[in-house]
Amino acid sequence: MIQDSQVTDSMTILLVEDDPAHATLVKRSLEDHGVHEGLRHVADGEAALNYMFQRGDYAQSEQSPRPNVILLDLRLPRIDGLEVLRQIKHAPQLRSIPVVVLTTSEADRDIAQAYEYRANSYLVKPLEYQQFHLLMRELGVYWLSRNRYGGG
Amino acid sequence: MIQDSQVTDSMTILLVEDDPAHATLVKRSLEDHGVHEGLRHVADGEAALNYMFQRGDYAQSEQSPRPNVILLDLRLPRIDGLEVLRQIKHAPQLRSIPVVVLTTSEADRDIAQAYEYRANSYLVKPLEYQQFHLLMRELGVYWLSRNRYGGG
Repeated sequence: MIQDSQVTDSMTILLVEDDPAHATLVKRSLEDHGVHEGLRHVADGEAALNYMFQRGDYAQSEQSPRPNVILLDLRLPRIDGLEVLRQIKHAPQLRSIPVVVLTTSEADRDIAQAYEYRANSYLVKPLEYQQFHLLMRELGVYWLSRNRYGGG
Repeated sequence: MIQDSQVTDSMTILLVEDDPAHATLVKRSLEDHGVHEGLRHVADGEAALNYMFQRGDYAQSEQSPRPNVILLDLRLPRIDGLEVLRQIKHAPQLRSIPVVVLTTSEADRDIAQAYEYRANSYLVKPLEYQQFHLLMRELGVYWLSRNRYGGG
């Protein structure tokens, strides 16, 4: 059975993105999939780790519900996206959460390192707006309507 | 940039599926994405591991090119799909290869165990043919045209 919009509406997605224009585009695309309050956005790697490990500004667990999926940019202020990925995938309580890398980098080095650190998927942001929007639609269909997540 | 059909044509996909009807459906769907010789099919868990570790019938490396992505059923003869997944993701030379679980099981236990063993994604096969075909189209778009793979 396909998950319906009620299920999508209860999902939490953590977007880790420092580029405001990219963040807006991702948010709008996910809204088309019925994701509203469920989208949480942080703009640097330190905030991403604080959110995931419920520290600092995110110490109260109601401020930082465990996401079903994480969309992770790589070039981030404070702490690099690859380091964020490494720490999430090293934490037994977090490593089951799918992390989709969403970056402008097409460098083989970044792709290899991301998979080495256990990224679930690696997507390159198209430079052109319409192509980026299309990619986000496909990402939304796949990770919000198709992929299944553990109950815990 | 989006990968074009020439790139897709050079991709190798390993399908691990014991149900002949499901295997046929997957093959036809992937052919729509330009995958022909690149699709390798094994029908049990032991053959899957022999292929991936280049042993037994697959000892010659030209018979078993490293796949870009693995589509893995869970209920398999000889060796269970979860054990196949565990061994692939424990092998340093193989663990970067994305494994997409494609199963009829919706059991939370299977989903949790698959992510624990580092599945990249978990998809449930719809019972209805048209829905299964649609899922395979979306899987094809995502993993063959959108996801990026390491060069090595």
